[in-house]
Order: sequence, then structure tokens, then C-alpha cells
Amino acid sequence: MWAGIKREGRGSDLGLLVSDEARPAAAVFTTNALNGAHIAVCREHLERSGGLVRAIVVNSGNANCATGERGIENARRTAAAVAERLGCPTEQVLPISTGAIGAHLPMDKILAALPELCEALSPDSAAEFARAIMTTDTHPKVESAEFGAGRATGIAKGAGMIHPDMATMLGFLLTDFAVPAAELPALTRRVVDRSFHRISIDGDTSPNDTVVLWSGGAAGSSGIEELATHLEEVAGRLCRQVAADGEGASRLMTIEVRGAASEAEAAKVGRVIATSPLVKTAVAGRDPNWGRILSAAGRAGVAIDVQKAKVWIGAERVYEDGDPYPEREQEAWRHLNENREVVLGIDLGVGDGRADVWTCDMTADYVRINADYRT
Amino acid sequence: MWAGIKREGRGSDLGLLVSDEARPAAAVFTTNALNGAHIAVCREHLERSGGLVRAIVVNSGNANCATGERGIENARRTAAAVAERLGCPTEQVLPISTGAIGAHLPMDKILAALPELCEALSPDSAAEFARAIMTTDTHPKVESAEFGAGRATGIAKGAGMIHPDMATMLGFLLTDFAVPAAELPALTRRVVDRSFHRISIDGDTSPNDTVVLWSGGAAGSSGIEELATHLEEVAGRLCRQVAADGEGASRLMTIEVRGAASEAEAAKVGRVIATSPLVKTAVAGRDPNWGRILSAAGRAGVAIDVQKAKVWIGAERVYEDGDPYPEREQEAWRHLNENREVVLGIDLGVGDGRADVWTCDMTADYVRINADYRT
Repeated sequence: MWAGIKREGRGSDLGLLVSDEARPAAAVFTTNALNGAHIAVCREHLERSGGLVRAIVVNSGNANCATGERGIENARRTAAAVAERLGCPTEQVLPISTGAIGAHLPMDKILAALPELCEALSPDSAAEFARAIMTTDTHPKVESAEFGAGRATGIAKGAGMIHPDMATMLGFLLTDFAVPAAELPALTRRVVDRSFHRISIDGDTSPNDTVVLWSGGAAGSSGIEELATHLEEVAGRLCRQVAADGEGASRLMTIEVRGAASEAEAAKVGRVIATSPLVKTAVAGRDPNWGRILSAAGRAGVAIDVQKAKVWIGAERVYEDGDPYPEREQEAWRHLNENREVVLGIDLGVGDGRADVWTCDMTADYVRINADYRT
Repeated sequence: MWAGIKREGRGSDLGLLVSDEARPAAAVFTTNALNGAHIAVCREHLERSGGLVRAIVVNSGNANCATGERGIENARRTAAAVAERLGCPTEQVLPISTGAIGAHLPMDKILAALPELCEALSPDSAAEFARAIMTTDTHPKVESAEFGAGRATGIAKGAGMIHPDMATMLGFLLTDFAVPAAELPALTRRVVDRSFHRISIDGDTSPNDTVVLWSGGAAGSSGIEELATHLEEVAGRLCRQVAADGEGASRLMTIEVRGAASEAEAAKVGRVIATSPLVKTAVAGRDPNWGRILSAAGRAGVAIDVQKAKVWIGAERVYEDGDPYPEREQEAWRHLNENREVVLGIDLGVGDGRADVWTCDMTADYVRINADYRT
């Protein structure tokens, strides 16, 4: 719903997820030293409730970050207002914020809107929730997979300030399978490491990043391995949606890194390539400028054998064994020009570590969106 | 002169510096694992000549990088052709390249042009040389200081792919004071650490970065301390020119970091802020979005006390002791809007380490320049 946190006409800004009863949840938060006010409150609530969550309330349009003690108090008041309506303890409500940094939440508007929000809940609220958490996203992001007697559903927002280790991203992974509270934190970490930590829009992490994994019970139990596999699949699809919807993006880029000394080094190189403005602007210009890919890999600080390395764009190996192949660039250009999802790959020539990282190209629109964000 | 490496009408692409006799020089090269072919050849020549240099020949328009053995051979041939004309050993000539990665040098054009280049030398060649090494620079960059009986002169190129630890930057520091060859490497490193390593355009280092410090003798000797001070001053001014001429830039940004645990941590935070696309696009939009400055500092991985931190834009402290001051943002906006040189500052609140880092804003033109670089 629109509570008036965003300007009128800019869309919904307050969303709510409610469970029939308090259910186990776990969360992963930003690694940024600056933390949105909700992070301290969420940690405190999860600890006091023993990881049981009844509701998650999210506002967009204001990050409630760099707002001091008053910001923390405002997050607590938001949770308390929802808890009162639902008749549950305050610590069973997680309040989460996303948006611009450095302004206090308009508490009068939020408190005035919450009663209607709590009334309006329906089984279809996931779609409405996905819309309410959007900032510069161009569309809501929901993914789902059914297996066994239940399902896994993911909802995310994020289109800028996105980088591994949690960026301006909110992700909600829901399953109606029961998971013991004790097993949830490790499961959450595992799923996030292989999904949300593999995307980057601009290398800027945000102070508010939060992913919550919330389990249910209606579908009974599931093997943890099977559940993890499905959650990773759903989270991976969400992440590709997030990368494809990067601010101003015209291309979803998959960076394939092969032949690294380890998976960790492969992921590191992938992130450096995925955050290189020169690589990202080249793709925006459909320029198969593989020299920038090789050069970005060269500054990643990991082992690379330049004489054995290979670089490919789509199916074309434009650099191989120390030599450029300019005659293959026409096909590489065609790959960049004709597909909305493109592949840039590099083999470092030193081992068998591999990882894929997702990002988007950097267009003049990225600059316009971020130059004018608060105006 | 124009040798035909760049397309016609895109300016001069071949430049030469010659000394009356072989003189001591030292160089600092890129830290990128990918190296332009000239770097191996320059290292080899400096070693074989005992650090004595008679000439430096630079081409723009082609980086001679990722070009394998043939690239190395082409750099050697260029040096040999100049040495033959000047009647000196080949190892006294440093061949240097800058431009696009991954194409072989057009040796026929270069070899055909060198005789005329060697003839055309005059005492004013520094200005012509500064023009010849330009790639996306909008103007040649020369700085000079006279002191004692002599002077220090700096010439640089670079407008993108620029980041500490040597970026697509070529820098030439010349002095007619005599410096013993044994003292030159340490002097070069010291000057570069306090100048070229403190600027960043986009965080992308280049495989070709090279700074050469070349001493003379006509002015006699100078104390090393005094010479270092003047060279740092000249190099610092060159660096601000480079940052101000960043691709598409409309603002020269000085990032002032104070209150860090050490100078090294201050410089690190400065570089993270200077490479944050969100900070740089905000300045392009004249948005005093200090939350992005604080957030970038928060992900730098250094000690920060968010409650004691301060952020300023121009003279306005827009964040102080945990609280935002939105009423000061109008003046901060005015600072960004009315000045071509702007200041963003942060005090981390944990010590007395300090450093200034220079960069430029990121505009839609940055994207256009880099999307269309090879077209």
C-alpha cells in the first residue's frame, strides 16, 4: 500500500508478510560498517524470540539509516504497532527499511497506515508485498518452485548499490516446509553464499541489505539437502532477475570464470570483472572489448597465466594462448548486440576453480538514475 | 606527430623525448598481472643500460598489450629504430605504448614515421610530446617548477582506467638536476606514492601504466629532499589535472579523509569513496547525498565509529555525531553546483590518520566515451 513515504504516484511503499503463527526464521545482514537502524532491531528481536517470527513489515522510500537513536526507536515503534494489531509479542515482528539514507521515518504516516495494511492481508499478498518493497526496480521480483508437498518462494528487491556480501537488496525466502530453528542459520548462509553473494550491479554495498529465510510447517518436513537445492534454485533465479533489472541495464551479463586456482578465486575474479566500469560500459556499447575483461582479471590479485588464458564472448574465443583473434570479434559483437542475456568468459589457465557471477551493463541511464535519485 | 596509428583527424600519436646524452632514469610500472609488451622491454633496457636513458618514444592509439611474443618484438624494433637514428645502444631507448588493448602495432607506419620524428626535435618538443601521448584526454598535461639553478617538469596522460597502483596513465618527470642512478628508484617510488597513487577515475587499473623519472645534469646537483618536494608538487598538480580531465568529468573532486586509524587506512577509505559509482553519480547530479559517502566508507574494511563520524560537503557538516542535518544540504548543493572543484570530506572518528584522494564525477558522458571507445 501507499503510506506516503514515497511521493504520490511513485508506487506502494509499505508491505507486510504474516504467518498464521510464529515460525522459525533466520537472516543474513549487510557487512557494511554502517547499518540501517532496522538491523540492530531485527537482531535483537530474533534473539529475544528464539528465532520465531510472526510478521515482517517493510517500508521502501526511506532506509532509516544514519538516523541515530531516534532511528532505532522508530524501527521498534513500527514493529510494536504491527504486533499490537496481530496480538503477538513485539519481538516476533521484523521491521525492515530500504530507500534513501539519512532521513527520519515519517512515523505519523506509517502508524496511520498500518491498521489498513494489517486488515488487507490475503493469500495473494506476496505479489503486493513484492511491489511495496521496490525502490528503483522496474518490476516486482517473485520466484517459486513446488516440490514434494510444499513449495519454496522467493521475493526480492534491488536494482542498484548491489554487490556480494549483501547490497541494497532485500530478499525473502519462504517455504511451507518445517525447518528446525537450529538448522536455519546455516541453511540461510549456504543459500545466500551461492546466490545473493554472486551478483553485483555497481560494487556499492548498502547498509540495509537483509535476506530472511522463513520456514512454515503446513507441508511437513523435507530433507535439508533437497530443500537447500530448491532454495538455491529459487534464489538464483531471483538474483538473475535482480541483475537483469540493474539500474539502467540493457543486458544481463553472466561472467563465467574457469581455470582458477580455487572456487573462491574464481568468484573473486568474477566480481572484479562484474564491477569494472570499463567492462560494463563496453557491453552497453556492444563492444566486444575483451582486453578490458583480461585487464580487469589482471588486477584481481589472484593467480593467472596470461599466456595460457582464454577469453570468450558468447561462443567466440577472442583471446587464446597469448594471442588476439580480431577476426572473431564480429561474431562476438553479434552476440552482444542480439541477445538480452550475454556471456563473458575467462579461463585463467591455472587450475579448475570455477564460478558464475551475474551483473548488468552500465548505461548512461545508470548515471541519470543515480544522479537524480533524490530529486 | 601523426603516424597513422590513430585514425586521421584524431590527433598526434607518436612522440619522442631525447636527452643530449644518456642520463639516469627510473620507472614504476603497473601492478596489473596483465602487462603491456613495453613493460618487459623497458625493464630489460633499464637493466642492460644501468639505468641510463637517451630517448623515450611513446605511441598512443594502441596499447601493444595482450599481443604475445610478437608484441614484445615490435616494442624492441621500435626502440632499435630510434637508437639507430640517434646513434646510441638500443637499450638506452624506452619504447612505451598506450591505447586500446589487443591489436598488433602497425610497424610499417611507425617505422616510416620515426625518421621525421627524430629530425623534428626542438627545445619545445615537450608540448608536442604531451599532445602525442593523449588518448581520451581533452588537453595535454604539462606542469613545471623552477628552483635553484634548474627545474622539474612533469608530463602526463590519462583520463580513464585510472586507479592507484598505476592506471592507464603515463607520467614523465624530468629534471635537469643531476641525480645519481642509485638514488633514482627510491625517489621515484616516493614521489609516485604521494601523487599518482592518490588519484582514481574509475577503479580500473591498466596493464600499461608507467611513470618515468629522468634526471639531467645541466643544473648541477640539488639536495634530494628539496628535489623530492618539488617533484611531489609538480606530480601532484599533474594528478589534479588528470583527475579533472577524467572521462566525461564535470567536477574535480577532492576526497578529504580525516580521523582514520592511520594514513594508509585514510588513503584506503579515500580510494573506496573515489571509486564509488553512487558517490560519483551523485556529484554529477549535484546531489549532496552524503549517505552514499558514509556508506562507501562503511564498506572500506577499516575502523570507523559511525556515532562519532562527520561528513562534510564544502564547508557544510551534513552528518555529525550520528545525526543528519538536512537543513545544511541546501548550502552543500550550492557548493557542488557552483564550483568546478568540490570537496567531500569524512572524519572516521577513530584516530588522526589523514589523506586526500582526487577523482572526478561520473557523468552520462563517461559511459558514452567508454561504450564507443573503439568505434
